[in-house]
Amino acid sequence: MNTPLKLAGLATLGASLFASLPVWAQDATATATEAVAEAAPAAVVDNAFIFNTLLFLIGGFLVFWMAAGFAMLEAGLVRSKNVTMQLTKNIALFSIASLMYWIVGYNLMYPGDAWTVTGYVGQLFSAKSIGGDPDIATGYSAGSDFFFQLMFCATTASIVSGTLAERIKLWPFLIFTVVLTGFLYPIEASWQWGGGWLSEAGFSDFAGSTLVHAAGGFAALAGAIILGPRLGKYTKEGRVNPMPGSNLALATLGTFVLWLGWFGFNGASQLALGTEADANAVSIIFANTNMAAASGAVVAMILSQVMYKKVDLTMVLNGALAGLVSITAGPLDPSLFGAVWIGGIGGVIVLVVVPLLDKFKIDDVVGAIPVHLVAGFWGTMAVPFYTDGTSFVTQFIGFAAIGIFMFVASIIVWVILKATMGLRPSQEDEIMGLDKAELGLEAYPDFTKG
Amino acid sequence: MNTPLKLAGLATLGASLFASLPVWAQDATATATEAVAEAAPAAVVDNAFIFNTLLFLIGGFLVFWMAAGFAMLEAGLVRSKNVTMQLTKNIALFSIASLMYWIVGYNLMYPGDAWTVTGYVGQLFSAKSIGGDPDIATGYSAGSDFFFQLMFCATTASIVSGTLAERIKLWPFLIFTVVLTGFLYPIEASWQWGGGWLSEAGFSDFAGSTLVHAAGGFAALAGAIILGPRLGKYTKEGRVNPMPGSNLALATLGTFVLWLGWFGFNGASQLALGTEADANAVSIIFANTNMAAASGAVVAMILSQVMYKKVDLTMVLNGALAGLVSITAGPLDPSLFGAVWIGGIGGVIVLVVVPLLDKFKIDDVVGAIPVHLVAGFWGTMAVPFYTDGTSFVTQFIGFAAIGIFMFVASIIVWVILKATMGLRPSQEDEIMGLDKAELGLEAYPDFTKG
Amino acid sequence: MNTPLKLAGLATLGASLFASLPVWAQDATATATEAVAEAAPAAVVDNAFIFNTLLFLIGGFLVFWMAAGFAMLEAGLVRSKNVTMQLTKNIALFSIASLMYWIVGYNLMYPGDAWTVTGYVGQLFSAKSIGGDPDIATGYSAGSDFFFQLMFCATTASIVSGTLAERIKLWPFLIFTVVLTGFLYPIEASWQWGGGWLSEAGFSDFAGSTLVHAAGGFAALAGAIILGPRLGKYTKEGRVNPMPGSNLALATLGTFVLWLGWFGFNGASQLALGTEADANAVSIIFANTNMAAASGAVVAMILSQVMYKKVDLTMVLNGALAGLVSITAGPLDPSLFGAVWIGGIGGVIVLVVVPLLDKFKIDDVVGAIPVHLVAGFWGTMAVPFYTDGTSFVTQFIGFAAIGIFMFVASIIVWVILKATMGLRPSQEDEIMGLDKAELGLEAYPDFTKG
Repeated sequence: MNTPLKLAGLATLGASLFASLPVWAQDATATATEAVAEAAPAAVVDNAFIFNTLLFLIGGFLVFWMAAGFAMLEAGLVRSKNVTMQLTKNIALFSIASLMYWIVGYNLMYPGDAWTVTGYVGQLFSAKSIGGDPDIATGYSAGSDFFFQLMFCATTASIVSGTLAERIKLWPFLIFTVVLTGFLYPIEASWQWGGGWLSEAGFSDFAGSTLVHAAGGFAALAGAIILGPRLGKYTKEGRVNPMPGSNLALATLGTFVLWLGWFGFNGASQLALGTEADANAVSIIFANTNMAAASGAVVAMILSQVMYKKVDLTMVLNGALAGLVSITAGPLDPSLFGAVWIGGIGGVIVLVVVPLLDKFKIDDVVGAIPVHLVAGFWGTMAVPFYTDGTSFVTQFIGFAAIGIFMFVASIIVWVILKATMGLRPSQEDEIMGLDKAELGLEAYPDFTKG
Repeated sequence: MNTPLKLAGLATLGASLFASLPVWAQDATATATEAVAEAAPAAVVDNAFIFNTLLFLIGGFLVFWMAAGFAMLEAGLVRSKNVTMQLTKNIALFSIASLMYWIVGYNLMYPGDAWTVTGYVGQLFSAKSIGGDPDIATGYSAGSDFFFQLMFCATTASIVSGTLAERIKLWPFLIFTVVLTGFLYPIEASWQWGGGWLSEAGFSDFAGSTLVHAAGGFAALAGAIILGPRLGKYTKEGRVNPMPGSNLALATLGTFVLWLGWFGFNGASQLALGTEADANAVSIIFANTNMAAASGAVVAMILSQVMYKKVDLTMVLNGALAGLVSITAGPLDPSLFGAVWIGGIGGVIVLVVVPLLDKFKIDDVVGAIPVHLVAGFWGTMAVPFYTDGTSFVTQFIGFAAIGIFMFVASIIVWVILKATMGLRPSQEDEIMGLDKAELGLEAYPDFTKG
Repeated sequence: MNTPLKLAGLATLGASLFASLPVWAQDATATATEAVAEAAPAAVVDNAFIFNTLLFLIGGFLVFWMAAGFAMLEAGLVRSKNVTMQLTKNIALFSIASLMYWIVGYNLMYPGDAWTVTGYVGQLFSAKSIGGDPDIATGYSAGSDFFFQLMFCATTASIVSGTLAERIKLWPFLIFTVVLTGFLYPIEASWQWGGGWLSEAGFSDFAGSTLVHAAGGFAALAGAIILGPRLGKYTKEGRVNPMPGSNLALATLGTFVLWLGWFGFNGASQLALGTEADANAVSIIFANTNMAAASGAVVAMILSQVMYKKVDLTMVLNGALAGLVSITAGPLDPSLFGAVWIGGIGGVIVLVVVPLLDKFKIDDVVGAIPVHLVAGFWGTMAVPFYTDGTSFVTQFIGFAAIGIFMFVASIIVWVILKATMGLRPSQEDEIMGLDKAELGLEAYPDFTKG
């Protein structure tokens, strides 16, 4: 029974009682009742429901904005001949993620008592799957939750596109995205956020250092191995050929966009804003998230100066992002100082792992593997330093389980795609650039030299 | 009388009654009164007023952001020699819209009991036109409403600039903007949102598929007809000359920005966030808006592959935008599935109408007519599928009335401007590019070839 | 004693009283009590605390976004050979500001009873400096305040980087940023916002026309004087060499981003959203901020047409920004008309001061001195037109005090940096461009001519 109905019932009950009272008591009761009535307009609305819903909506649009951030970062870090392709992949993967997460992913991830085939299909065809009257008891609007969770699914897919840039055809990449966003991400995420075995085991991953970032990173790593490096990236003599990004302004913009979106990513993962404690928690998360990013950037800047005698902007950008990934598993409990050192180690990871991947001839165009996979590992393992009730062992088990699942499943999908439709364009097409060869549309037709 | 005053009155009344009670009844009343006093701090503030105002402010800044989205989309889709001009037009049109909507538009659109000449002029010179103490009874702050509604007026003007790009002089375009934002948009919008005859007739246009998007599209269409196509766009032999945009990264960024801003455009058009039902409605709108965009993008992508054997990024971007326009007339009532198919048809429209316009030699540089006018028509006509109390006939009448008004009024203004100050630059200037010829400032002086 | 405890106490007290009542009175009391209990769930949460905190968080992420705006504006207005450097400086200065404001700045600016050395160091090492349970009595979460105030500190530093672009080495600039964000800004800002002597004197600077914008402008002016102009900017014959920005699309994007962020900058400086009056105030501020920017842009556009016979986009962009700075000292009290004329004069300032600086051979690459220092002065002096209790004399004293402090302190720091590590790159390096010379990384390697 909802609150207004209850009050109506009380009114009826009260009226009969009221008649039996002596006059002075009637007056006193009237006074109290009137005062209560004054209080009622505010009281009958569950403000926490609105605050929680609003947090999901604000957080959701900020994480949506991260899709634009990934698009700009990646478009800025590829060569100009592959920019249209990179942009196409990014807007397509977000759109596909939206559809797949709706068709199957959301139900798969949060099965509840609907974990049946009917459950998924029902979601698709029911007249108002997330609509209808709000269920106040859940504490937030179902639509806002769907909107918010969808963005996390899309983020996982965004991570993959950067690593595999400049050498994978459009359609096999998109089909992988279909599988990733409809099935792989929802399955592993349900282990923790769907109330699955990992959450029961005590694994802790507040906003998804492992569930989103490392998971996307493992899918990317699997793809990079199956796909091989770009033509000419690694010479037979063992030299690494730098292939500088075509637009660092765009890459920097993308990083700022991601940084901004991350306040929603981590902050709204508190999942509630309806109490003073929740508002305070969201605030701490915002501040910690910012400190970790700043620290990652500064550490990467200083290290690149020390190691290469030159500050490398792409390292600074990735340092900020690695700081963000590092704090994502536990952005609430550390002090600001904790956020600074956890994020700072993220910056170290970038400087150490980027050259390491080149040693193994794993060609990660934008550095997504150090930033999302390795810093995701670090962030997950750092949780027990500040969060009570967590353990390094459980954190490691959780990371390993999700890592193995995502890596193996991704390898299988990539291998099937390679065997059936093929992953790579022809050598001529790759040299010409995917924009002209596959899409027939250059990103900067007035500027490029050739 | 406001709430604190009423409570003070009750206290006085209560005190005299209180003295007449026996001790035990005094105690019981005191208990109840004290409990009420506890409830009071929350109760005396009308939280719904704050929530509603906050929705307008968040929605408003998101729709403001759409102005940047249009600027980037259009700057990316014109040739590099006209980029500075396109940017200038976009920031200028937003600024002019702000001033004109304040001077006359807002009062013209929401006449209320002030629909007199004094009303408009008063708005301009009154010491604090939207200021002063808040009128709690309206349910939101007047300033937040002005801020939000202003953004819709500016959006209408943004639509026009893209279609007419690369061949219209700056000042006649800006003068048209003055008329559009000060008079044309407020007049037609008042028919529905100002409580005019269309709203009384039962027309339904939640966030403005017709009132904003098709209206802007009709103004653009009128301009394109009067202005004629760009030099060399259509050859005498009937060939269509592709004139590819100079910066697809910018165009993609603009699309993401518009997508993001649309959450505010549609979501805050719920106009209230102060109850659980409103919060729920805003959530459904966010989710539906996202699904329609994603669906439009995917459909356009698949169709462009099928029709042209190549995915065309500009079609994908416009597909997303057409999906957004399609759901704008009724983003609340459809299920997610409804949003998907309504938005998907938006994607179809882009692929069908873009070549159709070329057949009629109507040169629409960025595709604003298919996206805003035609998808706006579709979105308006789709409302009765999900929204009770609406009819296809009334929807058509509303669309036609606004379409005819905007088209005829725009034609008149364009013709007058052409006859008096002239619309087009000289042929030499158009070939040289408006940046050098009219503004003397290139957008990318270090990059362009010539 | 918190509210739930009080209610529990009342329950105990009530139970004993209750038993002494006759049946009918028990019933009546029960009715009232139950109604109160209904009211309680909303009442026990202090919604104002949540609203205020939310305002800081939304405002904070909007002002964060301004850091991206400055980065894009400046990267767009420098020549392509210095873009990577400009981007690097911008992301680095924000990161450094975050760290320095945390280590010393925040405590220095808001000393309270902690203005001791222990205070600063304690901030650094305390386990949860902004964490722990929220202090409800303050009215907002400490973390949200830290997050918001930090962004203002970073904004001050962003202003400096634009003026000094294209001719200052990375590290001396960053070391200046360390001093500025850790010490100079917090000290002068504490005079007003930390409850210092200026606030006691009746100085009024709502969101920081002087404290942030002019302060940053003075630091920039000091740097420009010590550093000297770019090579070839001013010829011996007294000619001013135009050095056009390399990417006006980026500069326009940056301006839109700043405009958007300014809603948070000014709006959240209301510092409260928990009452109808506060929500109304924030709304007025949003509307006024927008009008001032629009007016500044339009005035600059018309003046550039009149003065130079051509609309100059960079003047329009700076006109909008000058309008924003002008309204920042008092965005709440003026009418919309007030915002329009105050912002419009900002637009005039740009057109007058930009050539004036060139006369004095002060090379301000992006126009930050007219926009932030001079319009900041104007905005500060305009406050008494609308805000009761302020005086032109006090406003002037406040501006002068902060100006002198920032200018002198900055001169000292710049001179020391020049004497020790040197500020400028070699002439060869400056001609080659800082990207290649100092960073070894071009921003647009595929496009640039040389």
